[in-house]
Amino acid sequence: MAQFINTKESLVTEAIDGHLYTAKGPLARLDGFPHIKVVLRSDWDKSKVALVSGGGSGHEPAHVGYIGKGMLTAAVCGDVFASPSVDAVLAGILAVSGPAGCLLIVKNYTGDRLNFGLAAERARSYGIKVAMVIVDDDIALPDLPQARGVAGTLFVHKIAGALAEAGADLDMVSATATRVIANICSIGMSLDTCTVPGSPKEERIEAGKAELGLGIHGESGVELVDFISARASMSLVLERLKPHAGSAPLVALLNNLGGTTPLEMYVLAKELTESNTIEGIQYLVGPAPMMTSLDMRGFSVSLMSVSSEDLALLQAPVDMANWPGCQILAPPVILPIPDGLTPITPIPSDDPATALFIKRCCDVFIKAEQALNALDAQSGDGDTGSTLAGASRALKDAIPRLPQADLTQLYRAIGLELSQTMGGSSGVLLAIFFSAVGDAASSGQHHVQALITGLARVQEVGGAHLGDRTMIDALAPALEALPEGFAATAKAARAGADHTAEILKAKAGRASYISEDRLNGYNDPGAEAVALLFENLTE
Amino acid sequence: MAQFINTKESLVTEAIDGHLYTAKGPLARLDGFPHIKVVLRSDWDKSKVALVSGGGSGHEPAHVGYIGKGMLTAAVCGDVFASPSVDAVLAGILAVSGPAGCLLIVKNYTGDRLNFGLAAERARSYGIKVAMVIVDDDIALPDLPQARGVAGTLFVHKIAGALAEAGADLDMVSATATRVIANICSIGMSLDTCTVPGSPKEERIEAGKAELGLGIHGESGVELVDFISARASMSLVLERLKPHAGSAPLVALLNNLGGTTPLEMYVLAKELTESNTIEGIQYLVGPAPMMTSLDMRGFSVSLMSVSSEDLALLQAPVDMANWPGCQILAPPVILPIPDGLTPITPIPSDDPATALFIKRCCDVFIKAEQALNALDAQSGDGDTGSTLAGASRALKDAIPRLPQADLTQLYRAIGLELSQTMGGSSGVLLAIFFSAVGDAASSGQHHVQALITGLARVQEVGGAHLGDRTMIDALAPALEALPEGFAATAKAARAGADHTAEILKAKAGRASYISEDRLNGYNDPGAEAVALLFENLTE
Repeated sequence: MAQFINTKESLVTEAIDGHLYTAKGPLARLDGFPHIKVVLRSDWDKSKVALVSGGGSGHEPAHVGYIGKGMLTAAVCGDVFASPSVDAVLAGILAVSGPAGCLLIVKNYTGDRLNFGLAAERARSYGIKVAMVIVDDDIALPDLPQARGVAGTLFVHKIAGALAEAGADLDMVSATATRVIANICSIGMSLDTCTVPGSPKEERIEAGKAELGLGIHGESGVELVDFISARASMSLVLERLKPHAGSAPLVALLNNLGGTTPLEMYVLAKELTESNTIEGIQYLVGPAPMMTSLDMRGFSVSLMSVSSEDLALLQAPVDMANWPGCQILAPPVILPIPDGLTPITPIPSDDPATALFIKRCCDVFIKAEQALNALDAQSGDGDTGSTLAGASRALKDAIPRLPQADLTQLYRAIGLELSQTMGGSSGVLLAIFFSAVGDAASSGQHHVQALITGLARVQEVGGAHLGDRTMIDALAPALEALPEGFAATAKAARAGADHTAEILKAKAGRASYISEDRLNGYNDPGAEAVALLFENLTE
Repeated sequence: MAQFINTKESLVTEAIDGHLYTAKGPLARLDGFPHIKVVLRSDWDKSKVALVSGGGSGHEPAHVGYIGKGMLTAAVCGDVFASPSVDAVLAGILAVSGPAGCLLIVKNYTGDRLNFGLAAERARSYGIKVAMVIVDDDIALPDLPQARGVAGTLFVHKIAGALAEAGADLDMVSATATRVIANICSIGMSLDTCTVPGSPKEERIEAGKAELGLGIHGESGVELVDFISARASMSLVLERLKPHAGSAPLVALLNNLGGTTPLEMYVLAKELTESNTIEGIQYLVGPAPMMTSLDMRGFSVSLMSVSSEDLALLQAPVDMANWPGCQILAPPVILPIPDGLTPITPIPSDDPATALFIKRCCDVFIKAEQALNALDAQSGDGDTGSTLAGASRALKDAIPRLPQADLTQLYRAIGLELSQTMGGSSGVLLAIFFSAVGDAASSGQHHVQALITGLARVQEVGGAHLGDRTMIDALAPALEALPEGFAATAKAARAGADHTAEILKAKAGRASYISEDRLNGYNDPGAEAVALLFENLTE
């Protein structure tokens, strides 16, 4: 599978420029492409402690997306999953460090440690105050003393960022970052590997399995587990985190590793919130893609045991959209269904003439069932006759409970009956027609005008115009002729219906997907039904 | 490939509750699960025109993610790619509509038109003022009079939302929405299909191809085109939009269809910005996932010709994170690389004793090349000897240009030489060691203390502790013994190096990946090198 890139080599520099073209905040980059890829705040005045992070690319929005007031001052970007060079890191440090100095926040990968570490030495040789913290929040490999740095790094960026923004000095920011690192733990789970640009995708995880304990560079998870459900997955992840979770209150960070859909992430958020595995998870950051691994279909959970001071720093405002905030977990607000959903049952009333008229109309469609089905078979699935006949039989049965003596209410009642008994689009459209006619009549419109209003509403909702080869082609001329009596109406409806046989291009409804040849010479079954109705009423 | 869901049937209701658990703004839902899935503002007072949208799920963050001040009042959610029922839409309308009435924003799909349309009729029968607009921005099928509604719908949500928030009446909001719809056009392109929960993935698009002109429900694109590059893809999309683009200024909306990585989206943003295909694109919304199609690896571009009034409404603040804002497209700010990146070349000075000492040290490693390689072959790739010998040869060549007479500068200069000539982690670590020693010496630390400071820095950056089976195990005791003279130092280094043969579990560096059996009885080559150095200096 290809990707929307130009070349693998130019991917990161082009993406950075794309980010800068469209950036909301005041951002800039250093003039060092392609080797030096440093993005920084353009409004930075060096009076406060600068925060520099970075590492390989492919983890977006980390780290460029976290540059701004209250988080990072600069990000040093390597190529995809590759550490930036010592020179690049040094350029970043030099560009943002003033008298207050600079904290480097480094994820625990050898390349990053070494390159950031040597850059720090070089910067120190210029007299710049540089501190460095190494984030090692991953608990997937319990025996490895060098735990990886993963999504928990966001806690460090946010808390150190808020402190630095508030004017804390380098010792304070650095000590706090070190304390945060000691209080965080993370683990990830994935259903599929990521696709590294320029490399074929490794199909490593078989169907029905998931990897638990992943890094963020496509490396295999520590365990291959059975995938059962979102609930079981979250439960497993929380079980692993439990021994490492500190005391309540805890903040969870629910990170999308890249390719998981928002629907899935919200299901996972629900499971995380409702789980009893770890007590004291009271706040959540996310769910959101924060520290991704390209398009990996997975998620990670990070936990941090927080003091009230930490919490305030986590909740301090920032001006970049990629930090999803830190919300208190609260049960959904559930409001009652509003009244009026169950339609008011009309009060039945008798009017023999009206009852007879409705019965006559229904009988027309019941009688025409086979003929209309046959016509529909030319352009559709051959059920127009059965649909109309079925609805007519149901309407006949409903006659005793209809408000026969109140024409306004009667239209609405017929619309309601049809919406409940007649399937498909035609049922809804006829229900709209009768409801709209009822409304128009109740607002004082004359009978014929109300019918025309109803037709207009059907056209608005259904989108069909005259000449589109639908029932409109018979109904519209029929309603226009209605003031002249049923004979004229029937004649107009018939002419309209017969004209549909010559309309080769059906523009609305299902027949629009049928080839022109198949339509030629046959009336549209809906229009034919309208013509048959008025012809029978004339007799 | 599985997904992080529990059951297909419970997916949408669970995701909605997950969203509400973690929602930033004041949101609620109606108590109608599973059939009625309506999310709405819980702070809504019905004094303004309510905006209701929705449709099938699978397009997140649309529509639930756009509920809040300045955009939607409520979203009515169907199951994945399925229209919500008439009852659900009616419940949504009734829940939020007051005297100011309600505008329904409906994407042009038959099910949505009909169900929203009939719900509107029912609401009107209660005397509620309801208007409905149908968005048909997709230009993929030029002959189809019923164009689909896709990502351009966001323009309608935002502009109508800002107007309603400002207190405009229903006629004004509705007329503006209609005008916006007339001024937008959209088209999408994708490299892969989406994965519908519960259904096997359709592998439809072959390698090297892309589909152009897609809907947002997994239906095939209108054309299968060759995929060449991000640039060519954007160019093709803009060519198709060009005949439909109105007059400048234009706002482009760059939408991630779900599975495209941020790196790719930013490359596409760069191409969109730099393209000359359509003149007058001055503003951009995105790039961001706004109207997705589950995990589809694609993007869409929507254009809108805007008045200054439209632009103000598009840029009006909202309180939900999913609206990415509407930015003016501006070239990246590029700052010069800071001074100091090229290390200052030290001024050479002569000191025959120092030169001899350095030469002697180098010769130790040159002589030990084969032996150290052999030792390294037991636990690594057998190149420790060659790496040290190579660096030593280079350092010997550099002796004439070193500041031999200035010890502080000399340490730094050696660090610099090693960082430029010695590959791998060990080169960086030794460079850090010598740089840090130089710094410590320049700040007044005694010679031995400066060396110990350097070692501490190496341990901090490299993460190795005493007993981890690295060169530290010889170097640390050696430096401790240094005040007692070279003989004691050599003895301590030898003891430390020999002890590494008994350390079965290597905890840092590459040997940490090697089985214990292979390490047993062999000294760590780095530690051995340190011991050899001091033993030779003693002679």
